[in-house]
Amino acid sequence: MQKVKIALLGLGNVGKGVWKILNMNKDEILKRSGYDIEISKILVRDINKERNLEVPKELFTTNFEEIIEDDSIEILVEVMGGVEPAIDYMLQGMRRKKHIVTANKMAIATNAEILFKTSREEGVMFHYEGSVGGGIPIIHGLNDNLVANKIEEVIGIINGTTNYILTKMTHEKISFREALAEAQNKGYAEADPTSDVEAFDAVYKLCILSSLAFDTVVNVNSIYREGITNIKPIDIEYAREFGYVIKLLGIIKEVNGELELRVHPTMIPAEHPLANVNDSFNAIFLKGNAVGDLMLYGRGAGELPTGSAVVGDIVSILRNKDKFAYHTYLENDQYREVRDMEKVQCEYYIRITVKDKPGVLGEISSIFGENNVSILSVIQKGKREEQVSLVFITHSTVEQNINNSINMISALEDSEKIENVIRIENLATN
Amino acid sequence: MQKVKIALLGLGNVGKGVWKILNMNKDEILKRSGYDIEISKILVRDINKERNLEVPKELFTTNFEEIIEDDSIEILVEVMGGVEPAIDYMLQGMRRKKHIVTANKMAIATNAEILFKTSREEGVMFHYEGSVGGGIPIIHGLNDNLVANKIEEVIGIINGTTNYILTKMTHEKISFREALAEAQNKGYAEADPTSDVEAFDAVYKLCILSSLAFDTVVNVNSIYREGITNIKPIDIEYAREFGYVIKLLGIIKEVNGELELRVHPTMIPAEHPLANVNDSFNAIFLKGNAVGDLMLYGRGAGELPTGSAVVGDIVSILRNKDKFAYHTYLENDQYREVRDMEKVQCEYYIRITVKDKPGVLGEISSIFGENNVSILSVIQKGKREEQVSLVFITHSTVEQNINNSINMISALEDSEKIENVIRIENLATN
Repeated sequence: MQKVKIALLGLGNVGKGVWKILNMNKDEILKRSGYDIEISKILVRDINKERNLEVPKELFTTNFEEIIEDDSIEILVEVMGGVEPAIDYMLQGMRRKKHIVTANKMAIATNAEILFKTSREEGVMFHYEGSVGGGIPIIHGLNDNLVANKIEEVIGIINGTTNYILTKMTHEKISFREALAEAQNKGYAEADPTSDVEAFDAVYKLCILSSLAFDTVVNVNSIYREGITNIKPIDIEYAREFGYVIKLLGIIKEVNGELELRVHPTMIPAEHPLANVNDSFNAIFLKGNAVGDLMLYGRGAGELPTGSAVVGDIVSILRNKDKFAYHTYLENDQYREVRDMEKVQCEYYIRITVKDKPGVLGEISSIFGENNVSILSVIQKGKREEQVSLVFITHSTVEQNINNSINMISALEDSEKIENVIRIENLATN
Repeated sequence: MQKVKIALLGLGNVGKGVWKILNMNKDEILKRSGYDIEISKILVRDINKERNLEVPKELFTTNFEEIIEDDSIEILVEVMGGVEPAIDYMLQGMRRKKHIVTANKMAIATNAEILFKTSREEGVMFHYEGSVGGGIPIIHGLNDNLVANKIEEVIGIINGTTNYILTKMTHEKISFREALAEAQNKGYAEADPTSDVEAFDAVYKLCILSSLAFDTVVNVNSIYREGITNIKPIDIEYAREFGYVIKLLGIIKEVNGELELRVHPTMIPAEHPLANVNDSFNAIFLKGNAVGDLMLYGRGAGELPTGSAVVGDIVSILRNKDKFAYHTYLENDQYREVRDMEKVQCEYYIRITVKDKPGVLGEISSIFGENNVSILSVIQKGKREEQVSLVFITHSTVEQNINNSINMISALEDSEKIENVIRIENLATN
């Protein structure tokens, strides 16, 4: 049995999970890694903060120098989150030949190039399984198990908070605000829920997945992003009538050699496996040209699930650190452009409030026709005063045609409001 | 770019998949592994057999000596199946310092000890991702990604043929025979379907999974096995009425320190993720004490999906072969006993044909009571001539009590036939 010293940078949710797992599963981890893992330092901002965790005070430090200067520490576990100083600390660590484990999606999505380049140059390992999908082994899946495949498509429910909210809205027919409040009560959503509900979190994760699936680097700002704040119970109800469920999906496809990357609420067939991924669960569905359809499902967040991924990465380093040579496969340093959203091809759900006057349906239908948008279904329902709700489901068309149609419809005198436009992915069900 | 030579032992379904993938994804595999992989020999029984595959004839050999004696061949890919000579060839290969990849569940389930021991002694890598769940990365998942967990439970749909048959029986209300015939037509079931429908195949796979989940070795013959040939449409219909779906499950649990291993048709709640795994898909659902619930879903068989796993293993060897040291975690050489089935605790569905006479229900109910079996629901339906069908759902009880009850009921003069006893797992749904 050998000993190894590691340091935690941060002791928030994930850091606590790592601490707990290393304690509760000590024997298993020792047996499986061959190492007795000692957390010898923990970087925190406030040593005296109440943490509900029995950690000897002498492990805490507020001074990163104490950690970086300690050559007996072989692995840095960065679980502080955010971009800086996390990036700076990881890079400093690599330059001091420390291996790095992180669960920091924001840091990787925004700084993948320098992190990979530095770890390659310094010959240290850099693992980040916890950054996407919590305990779901999707990063290693793409990096290792599925290397024999050309990945054709990745479709993921990669944000647990929004999935919880949409599940509540669907099952209990409550509003977004009510469901958000419940999520906040349960600790699934933060006081400021912007990062989740506006899909910034999902975009970071999709950025990481796309780079793995297509051996590339993607500028995170080029990914289309649309949150769930505009989803109304009535949209969910219409979706149900048409046989769909609304999920916030991250979508990666290669179309005509171009990379399509987008995160937005999406209607998918109610029988598709992703449609039954409920509450705060995450799932990543992918198609490989050899493996076919594959789905990984599990807890996408939480201290223990994400801790499971982080500790898995630590063990992976321990198993390899004495014989590590840099893998070819991490050299994803070629940037790829993301396909323009106007080229994206979908079916669309469009809900419009119009004045209840003769000829309105005709006017709108003509506009769709002029823009080559062919209509699959129309529903007119829910009369109230002088307004009426029109719902269209289109045949598959490019987004540009939809945008042009919407612009023209908005300009109509009889059109009160474009209430919602939701993309539909008619995923094949088996 | 380096070159590496490998040999295929066998060119059946999986072998063809490996050949195809190495050709169709050559560039990706080269980039991700750093190696140009050359299949330099293929062991077959009949060189002139029609294979519908463009393979240069000069690669074929019927003589294993040609392969084992060729020191330029670094990896043997054993895809011939069966126990012998597969085991012999793999062991010979290891002794000649060749790394081994196999998809042979039967060989591993029956000979794990000698295979692991020899690969350890010879310092070669031994990978077998394709042996369970086709392209689903469950072996590496348990071996690598989930090492931070104590695995508490593994429940899997690990045989695609029986899942196809049960799905057809459920959705189309057809008999086992009819569904089997369809499966045979589609190539999902073999002419002699025994290995699948009597659950031998699933038992081999469960044996492998249990050894990984619990760092142990299990005697494959000690695993309880029950196939699906006795499942009738009426059982599926009753299951539906009670909110269940019938699946052939492989179940691994640790109960009071004992290992519970069993493969049998099982009723599970219709809302559980496993209940929606249809057709020939496989899925493995597990609980870890850190990761929580996790499910991996995909194609459990087929030349390309299983080939995906095999080629993934080949790449894994290529990435590590110049710096490989034997992992601690493979040393699962401690045998563990399997828990006696009589101790297993479940709820039970019991369907009995009885004579339609007064007092029969009372007699049978009394027998259950005497044996401490408490009844949750009873349905009496489907009168026909002088017989009547009684269906009981019990509260949770040990299997011994059920067996004792069944024996006593069988001996009753008014009981015509115990038609079926199906275990119920009330898996939590989220």
